[in-house]
Amino acid sequence: MRSVTFEVVAECPHTRARAGLLHTPHGTIETPVFMPVGTQATVKGLTQRDLAEDLDVKILLANTYHLFIRPGHELIQKMGGLHRFMSWPNAILTDSGGFQVFSLSGLRKIHEHGVVFQSHLDGDLHTFTPESTVDVQLAYGSDILMVLDECPEYPVSHEYARESMQRTVRWAREANDHFRRRMETSPTGHALFPIVQGSMFPDLRRECARALLDLDTDGYAIGGLSVGEPRPMSLEMTEATEDVLPRDRPRYDMGVGMPAELPEYVARGIDMMDCVLPSRNARNGYLFTSEGRVIIKHARYRDDERPLDPNCQCYTCQRYSRAYLRHLFQAGEILYAVLATRHNIRRYLDIMRGIRHAIISNSFPDYLKCVRAASSEAV
Amino acid sequence: MRSVTFEVVAECPHTRARAGLLHTPHGTIETPVFMPVGTQATVKGLTQRDLAEDLDVKILLANTYHLFIRPGHELIQKMGGLHRFMSWPNAILTDSGGFQVFSLSGLRKIHEHGVVFQSHLDGDLHTFTPESTVDVQLAYGSDILMVLDECPEYPVSHEYARESMQRTVRWAREANDHFRRRMETSPTGHALFPIVQGSMFPDLRRECARALLDLDTDGYAIGGLSVGEPRPMSLEMTEATEDVLPRDRPRYDMGVGMPAELPEYVARGIDMMDCVLPSRNARNGYLFTSEGRVIIKHARYRDDERPLDPNCQCYTCQRYSRAYLRHLFQAGEILYAVLATRHNIRRYLDIMRGIRHAIISNSFPDYLKCVRAASSEAV
Repeated sequence: MRSVTFEVVAECPHTRARAGLLHTPHGTIETPVFMPVGTQATVKGLTQRDLAEDLDVKILLANTYHLFIRPGHELIQKMGGLHRFMSWPNAILTDSGGFQVFSLSGLRKIHEHGVVFQSHLDGDLHTFTPESTVDVQLAYGSDILMVLDECPEYPVSHEYARESMQRTVRWAREANDHFRRRMETSPTGHALFPIVQGSMFPDLRRECARALLDLDTDGYAIGGLSVGEPRPMSLEMTEATEDVLPRDRPRYDMGVGMPAELPEYVARGIDMMDCVLPSRNARNGYLFTSEGRVIIKHARYRDDERPLDPNCQCYTCQRYSRAYLRHLFQAGEILYAVLATRHNIRRYLDIMRGIRHAIISNSFPDYLKCVRAASSEAV
Repeated sequence: MRSVTFEVVAECPHTRARAGLLHTPHGTIETPVFMPVGTQATVKGLTQRDLAEDLDVKILLANTYHLFIRPGHELIQKMGGLHRFMSWPNAILTDSGGFQVFSLSGLRKIHEHGVVFQSHLDGDLHTFTPESTVDVQLAYGSDILMVLDECPEYPVSHEYARESMQRTVRWAREANDHFRRRMETSPTGHALFPIVQGSMFPDLRRECARALLDLDTDGYAIGGLSVGEPRPMSLEMTEATEDVLPRDRPRYDMGVGMPAELPEYVARGIDMMDCVLPSRNARNGYLFTSEGRVIIKHARYRDDERPLDPNCQCYTCQRYSRAYLRHLFQAGEILYAVLATRHNIRRYLDIMRGIRHAIISNSFPDYLKCVRAASSEAV
């Protein structure tokens, strides 16, 4: 009996896009879905009520690495798990920590059975193994766990990418074995997704995906993208394994992307995405609207009484002007981050709703054509 | 026809406390009232919806000086005034800018008809006169304006305090004359409050209050407190003018105080107060609860599952644990400031509601006795 199941409810006959329902122990999620990032058990600047009630977010991502470093998985477990600790009623997906170990940690040493790394906060040494990261994520009580993977930098040689990919596959097997043993006695349901790696080599990505199929997991992630490669390459790597990954399982592209790229990933068979862009860019003054980007510090917005996005129903756009947002940004006010993040996340969720609607109403190719035309104009 | 009127609805027979209704062009306010401080046209960390709907705030304070420096009164006027600019439906009181000129500005020169000061942001020179600060506040569209005053540091000599107080009285006359002329053609209603000064000398404070009575304004403020003097002295200075100021006008004590002090000011005839303490202390990790203060960074809260204040109905206390708040504080998360500010403001508003209820139900002396007993225990 699987705890996380996936139902395809509509497919685009011309692309690989599909609309689905992802059932988890903490609710059902309409896919394709964008998952806001709650790195440290909070989506920066938003309350859980803003997220669940105003924005109708059904699934959040939290970072295994960050929460392991602070406040620690033992504390979160003692507090009743992550849902209860952060007072979040809906689903939670946690990444494996691999990406942060490889991007944030000053010192790290990969060995065959895991990785030793130094905390970016206090320099303490820690070890992640395929088994320990499963245990940490089960301590959080995540609905969807990720296996420990190695996330190579870009570019690397084919030889290194192969060696690294094979390690990731081995770790995925070990993690999955451990996860299955843990599930035999677990009173709560969870799913574990392995991660396709292989750097920017399609042959390695296909080999990796095929090897992971044996694990028969509830879903599959595609990792190692958005590490500095050109954007067409990220799309190509996603495409490379589309026909290898099982059609009846959700596919999660980790860490993507810009608004115009979201339908491109969906067109390549992706059901789930996450990215810090909407929240991080919001805080930096970069806002996504239905009419293009708004760099709020620009002088032209100084006396602009219009809402940020006249087509947006979010609280920010319903109530405040660009002039006020610019003032808050210039003054370094907390309310700026609060309002800007709320809008940018809403924008991403609206795009995903638009994509889903297009797939279901059999108009996804037209939708994609419009997005491509608009983004080529913007360039 | 006055635009801002005050109705006393109950009086404590044993103290000078009274409960009232302050009618403004943007709604009626129950007094005694605590006004949250929205320095730069935002109460740091709270949305206007949080303030108006969740916290039921009926009047906010904004800072004339800060908004004059950035974004400027011309812009705010062009955007339809401060209410519209910040999307705030209820009343707004603006201070005169005097306190900030004297506390923030690097360089300032008082002359007989105003003060020349340097912006704390860019060093530009500006001048405030009694007339210009009325014009600036009318450009904001404030419901209640304050006259330009000189706010002497503590301590000063009796001689300097007298000279300064006399200047403040003269400025108040000039401001009031100008305000009345402006009101003759104003389509909107506003009130101007003069400010009682006189440093820590009761004779000067009484002399000042008597001189201001001639202006027959809609209310009176007491300024120049909380500038470093011992707390009993702030209370004594408030008491000094209680029987001089007219009973049928609201009295506003500027910049006070700690929770246990709020009823002390009310007992001395004060109807309105404002202070940055609840919001600033919230951000610094200092939380006010019905059971005393909570310094959230303390290790004892690390695994404390209880709400911050079990007797509080605010969103923060209804939904989150001390352990989660501590985690957010330690991690430097925006959500910490958002949740902590919401609670601390709610605590102040609850105290004011409790005070008002006690006055109306004729139990204010008992209320005061309890607060005094609790705060002497806390020491």
